[in-house]
Amino acid sequence: MKIAVFQVGGLTLRGEVVGEEAVGLGRRWPLAQVRLLPPVRPSKIVCLGRNYPAHARELGNEVPERPLLFFKPPSAVIGPGEEILLPRSSRRVDYEGELAVVIGRRCRNVRAKDATEVILGYTCLNDVTDRAAQEWECNWVRAKGFDTSCPIGPWIVTPDELDFPLTVETYVNGELRQRGTTSQLIFGIPEIIQEITSFMTLEEGDVIATGTPARVGPLSPGDRVEVRIPGIGSLENPVGRGGD
Amino acid sequence: MKIAVFQVGGLTLRGEVVGEEAVGLGRRWPLAQVRLLPPVRPSKIVCLGRNYPAHARELGNEVPERPLLFFKPPSAVIGPGEEILLPRSSRRVDYEGELAVVIGRRCRNVRAKDATEVILGYTCLNDVTDRAAQEWECNWVRAKGFDTSCPIGPWIVTPDELDFPLTVETYVNGELRQRGTTSQLIFGIPEIIQEITSFMTLEEGDVIATGTPARVGPLSPGDRVEVRIPGIGSLENPVGRGGD
Repeated sequence: MKIAVFQVGGLTLRGEVVGEEAVGLGRRWPLAQVRLLPPVRPSKIVCLGRNYPAHARELGNEVPERPLLFFKPPSAVIGPGEEILLPRSSRRVDYEGELAVVIGRRCRNVRAKDATEVILGYTCLNDVTDRAAQEWECNWVRAKGFDTSCPIGPWIVTPDELDFPLTVETYVNGELRQRGTTSQLIFGIPEIIQEITSFMTLEEGDVIATGTPARVGPLSPGDRVEVRIPGIGSLENPVGRGGD
Repeated sequence: MKIAVFQVGGLTLRGEVVGEEAVGLGRRWPLAQVRLLPPVRPSKIVCLGRNYPAHARELGNEVPERPLLFFKPPSAVIGPGEEILLPRSSRRVDYEGELAVVIGRRCRNVRAKDATEVILGYTCLNDVTDRAAQEWECNWVRAKGFDTSCPIGPWIVTPDELDFPLTVETYVNGELRQRGTTSQLIFGIPEIIQEITSFMTLEEGDVIATGTPARVGPLSPGDRVEVRIPGIGSLENPVGRGGD
């Protein structure tokens, strides 16, 4: 099942995507006639840093011994097609295409072997990063938390529809920039869920961003960036410049 | 006005505290007969690190040139009287008494001179910190984000009732441990709000923790810790040990 949130005719609906149609309230609309919104409104977004070996190395970092965690705030979330606004103050802002896990129920102290029980599904996420701020910040609040820095979507695909490993790709203006496979993840999804819930409650709708493959790179105003995960779908966003 | 959220007779009410009474739905109860809950449920909690010079120095850190920001997640919030559960895996967990600002309306790009317009009021916050995790973590997710690590309360006091500077005190088992005054803040509240909203939207009910004075120290199971700000009130929590 593909769970989607969309606007049509002045209504906001939580429904499904079936083929090329959006379905909700017993009605169907061609996908092109609805506006997809973020498929989830997380109370928190827990992200993994340096979780693909080649990406850790490309920025001159060690592979972490334990999952490197950070937060993106809910205020950073945008949906498919919404504009990523690059902070005016930054000289470099990067795309980071990622597979995101959406949590299906409140949980704490989940064992890795039971982790699939708390997963609602998967979606695409772009962990847009102010690389210039990241160089000097102790915690990555400015680097990872600015408004529009967290596109999510286009919908949530339930686990029964997916075959792992998944391929994660990022395109800029139609050109392939990143390609990784979840078989390269240093910390796998069950292990990540065990680690996070060993100290913190995850709520229904919370999101875990599993990390980005190698070949991150900068975005410029006027670009279109796409995170594509075959089996899930494509999250596309235009890029503009913020007014700050 | 003191804005409080409390439970009484099976109901959860948002009301006021007047003298020694809780007031809501046109009724009054003695404070001792109600259970105070966190006075706010923030979508995000933005915290300042090293914002008192003597505290920055005591942990061997420089005074930051720009506000050092980090997040605590909403899942860490507890109310007055609720138990702080020290992570079993940690060898040192510290109290950090702080003045917290509660935001009154959604805002972005607020100038320091206009900051008072977006402030609903002030409350006490204990930025409980796993100091052992903080030593090795790149972002302080485990150190600052574990469940129960963010007591908030006992209520929100509106600005008209307060005279700055405020004194922030922390007591453990009735013994004074920290005392600072907001006149020592490296970055003042208007400046903090300008800085945060220069890149990130603050929502109604979001909380800013303004940093802790010197003389942080460890908590042990069985302790009672109190953050007291004369003019606001007292936030007391017992300390236990988590089951993780």
